[in-house]
Amino acid sequence: MFESAELGHKIDKATYDKEVPALREALLNAQFDLAEQAKFPVIILVGGVDGAGKGETINLLNEWMDPRHIQVHAMAQHSDEERQHPPMWRYWRALPPKGKIGVFFGSWYTAPIIERVLGKSKATQLNARIHAINHFESMLSNEGALIIKLWFHLAKDVQKKRLKSLEKNPKTQWRVTKQDWSNFKRYDKFRKVSEHTLLATSNEHAPWIVIEGADARYRNLTTGTVILDALRQRLAQTGKPTHIHAAPLKAAIDHLDLFDKLDMTLTLNDKKFASALERYQGKLNLLTRDPRFAKLSVIAMFEGSDAAGKGGAIRRITSALDARHYRIHPVAAPTEEERAQPYLWRFWRNVPRTGHFAIFDRSWYGRVLVERVEKFCTEADWMRAFGEINDFEEQLIEHNTVLVKFWLTITQEEQLKRFKAREEISFKRFKITADDWRNREKWDAYEEAVCDMVDRTSTEIAPWTIVEANDKNYARIKVLKTLCERIEKALDKLD
Amino acid sequence: MFESAELGHKIDKATYDKEVPALREALLNAQFDLAEQAKFPVIILVGGVDGAGKGETINLLNEWMDPRHIQVHAMAQHSDEERQHPPMWRYWRALPPKGKIGVFFGSWYTAPIIERVLGKSKATQLNARIHAINHFESMLSNEGALIIKLWFHLAKDVQKKRLKSLEKNPKTQWRVTKQDWSNFKRYDKFRKVSEHTLLATSNEHAPWIVIEGADARYRNLTTGTVILDALRQRLAQTGKPTHIHAAPLKAAIDHLDLFDKLDMTLTLNDKKFASALERYQGKLNLLTRDPRFAKLSVIAMFEGSDAAGKGGAIRRITSALDARHYRIHPVAAPTEEERAQPYLWRFWRNVPRTGHFAIFDRSWYGRVLVERVEKFCTEADWMRAFGEINDFEEQLIEHNTVLVKFWLTITQEEQLKRFKAREEISFKRFKITADDWRNREKWDAYEEAVCDMVDRTSTEIAPWTIVEANDKNYARIKVLKTLCERIEKALDKLD
Repeated sequence: MFESAELGHKIDKATYDKEVPALREALLNAQFDLAEQAKFPVIILVGGVDGAGKGETINLLNEWMDPRHIQVHAMAQHSDEERQHPPMWRYWRALPPKGKIGVFFGSWYTAPIIERVLGKSKATQLNARIHAINHFESMLSNEGALIIKLWFHLAKDVQKKRLKSLEKNPKTQWRVTKQDWSNFKRYDKFRKVSEHTLLATSNEHAPWIVIEGADARYRNLTTGTVILDALRQRLAQTGKPTHIHAAPLKAAIDHLDLFDKLDMTLTLNDKKFASALERYQGKLNLLTRDPRFAKLSVIAMFEGSDAAGKGGAIRRITSALDARHYRIHPVAAPTEEERAQPYLWRFWRNVPRTGHFAIFDRSWYGRVLVERVEKFCTEADWMRAFGEINDFEEQLIEHNTVLVKFWLTITQEEQLKRFKAREEISFKRFKITADDWRNREKWDAYEEAVCDMVDRTSTEIAPWTIVEANDKNYARIKVLKTLCERIEKALDKLD
Repeated sequence: MFESAELGHKIDKATYDKEVPALREALLNAQFDLAEQAKFPVIILVGGVDGAGKGETINLLNEWMDPRHIQVHAMAQHSDEERQHPPMWRYWRALPPKGKIGVFFGSWYTAPIIERVLGKSKATQLNARIHAINHFESMLSNEGALIIKLWFHLAKDVQKKRLKSLEKNPKTQWRVTKQDWSNFKRYDKFRKVSEHTLLATSNEHAPWIVIEGADARYRNLTTGTVILDALRQRLAQTGKPTHIHAAPLKAAIDHLDLFDKLDMTLTLNDKKFASALERYQGKLNLLTRDPRFAKLSVIAMFEGSDAAGKGGAIRRITSALDARHYRIHPVAAPTEEERAQPYLWRFWRNVPRTGHFAIFDRSWYGRVLVERVEKFCTEADWMRAFGEINDFEEQLIEHNTVLVKFWLTITQEEQLKRFKAREEISFKRFKITADDWRNREKWDAYEEAVCDMVDRTSTEIAPWTIVEANDKNYARIKVLKTLCERIEKALDKLD
């Protein structure tokens, strides 16, 4: 991978001075078009060996382009808020919105590579992270982001010379630290691990560009040109793919689906309900006050047919909790800032910190439900969402999140009864809208979408719980009981 | 202040059961209207003595109202990100947007009261904080927020009884901690300090409502009614005051203003410029690499006539800095999420952490400049902005922020020359718009606004630096030199 970046590339001063003005002007113009169109974000990752000019390059970009629309992120130490979220949270919150450029100095590659070099992780662990990175970048790219990954390289002897010369100059000696020399001792290991990682993450979405860092003029001109070409090409693309090459999803030809196997007649009488409610609310309260709970976070996520009783089920949970420790996130239309980011961004920003309890009233599954059925997104978008959602949930769970996903289902007849009742009760008027009646007409399409969703996202670590909700008593207890069991299991696993 | 809350208020069960259903329905309806209108946020502060039902009340609100539109903030320990910002930052980032209810359990009152009770602060310090709180709440109220401040009180003997009875019941004993008893020993001091604080912060914007906490039914019904009345009254108000009672600001009758005293012929030749540039850029770079710099943050803020050279001046600063340590915030139209918050919110979210350097290209002064001249806000809004901005800047400076405010000024003739030049250079095309030409026609109105701004916001701790910018060389050096001097002074003050 690094062969072409050890050839001693050089650009003479005359050529450099001649080419730079036009390059800068072109870069500024491209950046202007980027901001004007505001159709996609640009994510530039800067990595490589010490002394190869990473920092200088970032400063150069800020000098050549309009620094007001570039956000540089030196991803150094984690803050405690960052440590209390899944590892990728810090990158999600730093993602540039459409029209802007985000430069990451240190990125999602840094820890996987360094930990492997230092022998703190195994080859299989590195590969798992590479796999996750590929998924993440593929998602970013599919969401429209332009990802430019620059790797600044120096051959071993060149790096040694470079560190020595920086050290000799009183003006630059501060830049060479003990850490740099101790890193240098690991040059070969670093080269090997980086090469493996770069090869495995160079794909059609975001290939690595390796740039020899020894000669500043060569480095600068190459960097500028790479970025310019990438910007121009992406700016010239209009529209986005709306079709996919995969076989379309189809309901089973005998029309038997998982709803047919549900027993929608399940009920619980009021007396049994009252005692079960007291029992499970008490249990839930105790579980959240368990000292070990501080090591977990909980996400209880509710999806379901309109009027299936999500709100009521949620209230039976919250009345067992201390209001200071949970937050309900009702999912409505995204805001302007949310629309300028990848789809999952607005859920990432609401991922609870360790020790906290989040309830989502509707969720990231909107993409494969309402957005699919109402055609708010393309088939390609919702098809890839299954995988992206599984990735997202895997990260939550790896961070000790108890993720409990409920689908509350009612029959068409029951829904009709509830809609009519809602229209009659004044303080429930906000619960019934014209949209609800419209959605009802697409019952079959929604049912098909739900079956696909459950099939493709009910994983062993994040299973769906289908709740037969024609009877509110039965549904509320099933929700509470499931939640208690899942939290209890997670607490026991901590021991 | 607490006399009426020590009378032993009580509500019998029959009355309670009769009144609650109607109250809940009315609260839900009011909350629905609040969300629908989305015209103002509701901020509910909950304070008071231990055991008086603060937590229960918050849970009750979540039960009675729609918890999906209530955000409860238990403002407990500070995260490290919070500690690296001025103290009020954590509250700013938790403010509810228009249409939502934010409940603060523990608020900007907690630390001032507790620290005074524990003898960690002096009476004068408490009074300074009370003063700041009044300013803050008056700003929130003027921005449209409905602030409801609830104080739950118990007489001394009642509190003692309450703690003992909680302790006796195995189901509630966990709620009484050693801390509660040690707080109880300070009951008299706490009562005195609270009373002083509550009296001094009960004003027309946000009076404290003291509620006796001994009887749960009385407490619940009172709380619900207070909130309902406040919501209803505020929902019924339409529009906002557009006039003020103060004397309007007027230019001096002899038309002599501070621009007349500037020497707009100041220049610096290229040779002197080159050497000064090297000198001050080098100095700035050294200053930011000073180990003591980690204790400061810097905000360099640029305002000025169109085409006065803000961008060029900023680039002369940034090219002396490491791109990983600064962030430029170009101030454009607010986003949807920003519009749902008080005016200063979008600047608070960009306040730099300790050790960081922020450059604002235009700023919070927009309100007293473009918004005043173009009548984007009312006279009352921009008149109060002077005081609000001074408060904001005072908080920045108290948090060791070096705040350097530049006004770059050019003559009308020089502006015309630059506008014309810009139209001719392709890569500067984005720097000249129809707006610029329009603004130019309002030269006098802008000049008057600038003079008022400088008069009213150039304080000893945050002075304006007026930069004569007809000559770019001169202006850029004056900016760099001023910045260096201010940072140097701040570093020396740390010793």
